[in-house]
Amino acid sequence: MPEAFFQEDDRLPQTPEPSTMVIFGASGDLTSRKLIPALYDLAASRRLPMEFAVVGISRTEMSHEEFRGKLRKGLEEHRSEEFSEDVWKSFSAGIFYLPGDSKEPRTYSELRDFLRSLDEERGTGGSRIFYLSSSPSLFPAIVDGLGESGMSAEDESSYSRIVIEKPFGRDLASARELNSEIQSRFREDQIYRIDHYLGKETVQNIMALRFSNGIFEPLWNQNYVDYVQITVAEDIGVGTRGAFYEEAGALRDIVQNHLMQVLCLTAMEPPVTFDADSVREEKVKVLKAVRPFPEGEEYAVRGQYGRGWVWGEEVEGYREEDEVAPDSVTETFVALKMFVDNWRWAGVPFYARAGKRMPKKSTEIAVHFKPTPHTPFARAGDDGMEPNVLVIRIQPEEGVSLKIGAKVPGSGFEIGAVNMDLLYGTAFLEEAPDAYGRLLLDLMLGDPTLFIRADEAEGSWRILESVMKAWSEKEEIPLYPAGTWGPEEADALLESDGREWRRP
Amino acid sequence: MPEAFFQEDDRLPQTPEPSTMVIFGASGDLTSRKLIPALYDLAASRRLPMEFAVVGISRTEMSHEEFRGKLRKGLEEHRSEEFSEDVWKSFSAGIFYLPGDSKEPRTYSELRDFLRSLDEERGTGGSRIFYLSSSPSLFPAIVDGLGESGMSAEDESSYSRIVIEKPFGRDLASARELNSEIQSRFREDQIYRIDHYLGKETVQNIMALRFSNGIFEPLWNQNYVDYVQITVAEDIGVGTRGAFYEEAGALRDIVQNHLMQVLCLTAMEPPVTFDADSVREEKVKVLKAVRPFPEGEEYAVRGQYGRGWVWGEEVEGYREEDEVAPDSVTETFVALKMFVDNWRWAGVPFYARAGKRMPKKSTEIAVHFKPTPHTPFARAGDDGMEPNVLVIRIQPEEGVSLKIGAKVPGSGFEIGAVNMDLLYGTAFLEEAPDAYGRLLLDLMLGDPTLFIRADEAEGSWRILESVMKAWSEKEEIPLYPAGTWGPEEADALLESDGREWRRP
Repeated sequence: MPEAFFQEDDRLPQTPEPSTMVIFGASGDLTSRKLIPALYDLAASRRLPMEFAVVGISRTEMSHEEFRGKLRKGLEEHRSEEFSEDVWKSFSAGIFYLPGDSKEPRTYSELRDFLRSLDEERGTGGSRIFYLSSSPSLFPAIVDGLGESGMSAEDESSYSRIVIEKPFGRDLASARELNSEIQSRFREDQIYRIDHYLGKETVQNIMALRFSNGIFEPLWNQNYVDYVQITVAEDIGVGTRGAFYEEAGALRDIVQNHLMQVLCLTAMEPPVTFDADSVREEKVKVLKAVRPFPEGEEYAVRGQYGRGWVWGEEVEGYREEDEVAPDSVTETFVALKMFVDNWRWAGVPFYARAGKRMPKKSTEIAVHFKPTPHTPFARAGDDGMEPNVLVIRIQPEEGVSLKIGAKVPGSGFEIGAVNMDLLYGTAFLEEAPDAYGRLLLDLMLGDPTLFIRADEAEGSWRILESVMKAWSEKEEIPLYPAGTWGPEEADALLESDGREWRRP
Repeated sequence: MPEAFFQEDDRLPQTPEPSTMVIFGASGDLTSRKLIPALYDLAASRRLPMEFAVVGISRTEMSHEEFRGKLRKGLEEHRSEEFSEDVWKSFSAGIFYLPGDSKEPRTYSELRDFLRSLDEERGTGGSRIFYLSSSPSLFPAIVDGLGESGMSAEDESSYSRIVIEKPFGRDLASARELNSEIQSRFREDQIYRIDHYLGKETVQNIMALRFSNGIFEPLWNQNYVDYVQITVAEDIGVGTRGAFYEEAGALRDIVQNHLMQVLCLTAMEPPVTFDADSVREEKVKVLKAVRPFPEGEEYAVRGQYGRGWVWGEEVEGYREEDEVAPDSVTETFVALKMFVDNWRWAGVPFYARAGKRMPKKSTEIAVHFKPTPHTPFARAGDDGMEPNVLVIRIQPEEGVSLKIGAKVPGSGFEIGAVNMDLLYGTAFLEEAPDAYGRLLLDLMLGDPTLFIRADEAEGSWRILESVMKAWSEKEEIPLYPAGTWGPEEADALLESDGREWRRP
């Protein structure tokens, strides 16, 4: 076959090049709960190169063996059923630990030397991934340390990538500062901003559904869509994360990242291809098109949960939670009414809400289509007619359902609403990989499609600036009982449009 | 409330006015297998007026009681579980029998007198339904008899309706002749041509789906539909109906009526309302738009089943069936490629097939949509991508399924085809009424929407004229083994377009 016709079969699982992943803040939760289990899974499914190493760094004094022991414990907790002694043995042989203060230049020279020795001993080949799992306040020091020590540099045969976890700053100004700090040492294409939401199969399936089905695209615009509702509801409260949550609140914790990402994937134009920049360009275009929030709270509602009942159990109010101020005005619920001002979406409201202590856990996108322009059934009693709704359920019970009208059996022509369902879990035999596993693999393969670009993070903050400003000036916050769908103000947001929130 | 705002609630089940149904050919199968069970069901669900009577007529000598006994036997067979002595007692009290030759004028004067006496005794009110269940060769005599005796006449307080069963003639000329014979005695709006197919819930659901869902209409045209396949497959052979079938063949038995009706419902424009003429006008427009078949067999294929295996059992060929000529060239299978030449459907082929001794019983409409105009997944391996298909299953397993693309779990962006399903039987608690029951009720209520208008019957024959002519000149017919999807010629019909028949 002539070479010109040769095409790489991209469906064959690719195995990344040799590399070392350095985790800053390695003694933290994320490492043992998410990163190591995800890497372990990749190792178990032979998606990791043999020449791969993990180097954990934090201030705690620990030996390699103590670090491995700690990780093994976490792994046995989170992968209890699948744990294999054999896989662990070969995987853990590549795990190392360096104690060090990330503010000390010495840490970086030690790290550099250690990595070089690993390259020689284990053949890890010089490529590095620096995973910043530490407190965001340490990011500037780490970035500088990596830059000064020359570890941000790449050469022809090896790469240097840096990964940061959301939140990317806490407002537009700090996000810009963070981006420019990192960009002073790393090029944008070396930077991987991770929001694990994008690693979820069902989040990616939004794009798959939209762009692999010829029947959706003609309907996916203001001609046929009446409005869209996006819900990111949790039933849990803040739990042990009170101190973190006091600083964050629902807007920074969920809305700025997860919810805005879901909005982008729902509203974006079809990308030319699935390379990183084509996709992210389209997402940024959506963020740019979102209409700035008007002054006042009429398009943005917040709330905080009080005492209430969830799943039959009485639970504390937010202000009673550990490490939460008794007069806190931190929001645990946000509802927004947004418009995407472009040709596709002009005039179509996107209602979005995110909250804790809702009646149930549910993340979904509901595309409400306009009613039929005219109904021949009118004179035959059309009370059963409801507009079509396409619901993409992200979790739980991942799937798609389409509400359609069908004839109610019997004489006459009464129409009833019924659901056509696709349960994602039963449709495919393949098990959905863990979100982190997917993203870590993409990261090692150098595919940033599912990572956040600088302008995406900033664009999302920009939209929310005026809302944050308005709220920061308030000394009170509407309360809602735990186990309800938020404060009355959230209902009022839709009532004025003659609509109501779905009860998922 | 001012009268002007008063609207009748059409959803309340209506009960027809008092009337008498006269059945010609009452000793035949249809009466005991279909008509009486359907009327019995209506009585059981209190949809019949108390002042309702059935008068059976045929040449056989029988008393009222003997006639009732015969019907009861049929009923116990076909409604074994639901049979109620109480319902039967009150229902059968209104059943009568008159022996008579439908060619004799005396039969009609006797009938007229008998009906008048019933009106007095049972309060049946003077309205009549004449159901022609006899051999079509007797239709002219019956119509004349009814006309001469004055029973086709209506007055202000009572109606006279005539019902004829399909087939309506055996070609365009005979259909026209039949229509003009009946129309010489009855106005068109007194004539109810019944095709029980239209009484089926799932056939009516085609209209419900199309016109109560805003999302289908924008897609339902040549911009988005690639082609349509209509299948009316039976697994049974001709059984005891050999003599009948020799005269009819699949084209007259199924294609001219059922299949063309399904085509009309699939392709028609949205009617303004569901009154009889709005709906039938749109159906006739489809028939007028169907492109005349070109000469030759390239757009119309027929076949006849030979010996073969169905459901694991060896079965006889058509020519070996009882009352079938050993050299018969009657078709038991028809496949057509049709075009509906209007703005909506220009260039979209409608492939339709009907046959006996297929591998399974299946009636369905499959709307195959065009593939996406461009796929961003192309470079990420898109082999799983298949165009969307909406399948409306009429029987068995009545329901709707939509084939869509979704992401196959795993890395990369592989798309797989999955089905969203709606099983009609599980979606509604209500049980679908019998097709005859629905139609008989509409008939008594004077709603001819689901009956065939004269120009519909003629329009359908007109389309098939050239095909029938071509076939009548042939002395051979392609054979297919029982238990297969028809002769090779049927596959070739689609292969030349680069397509293939579905395997339901």
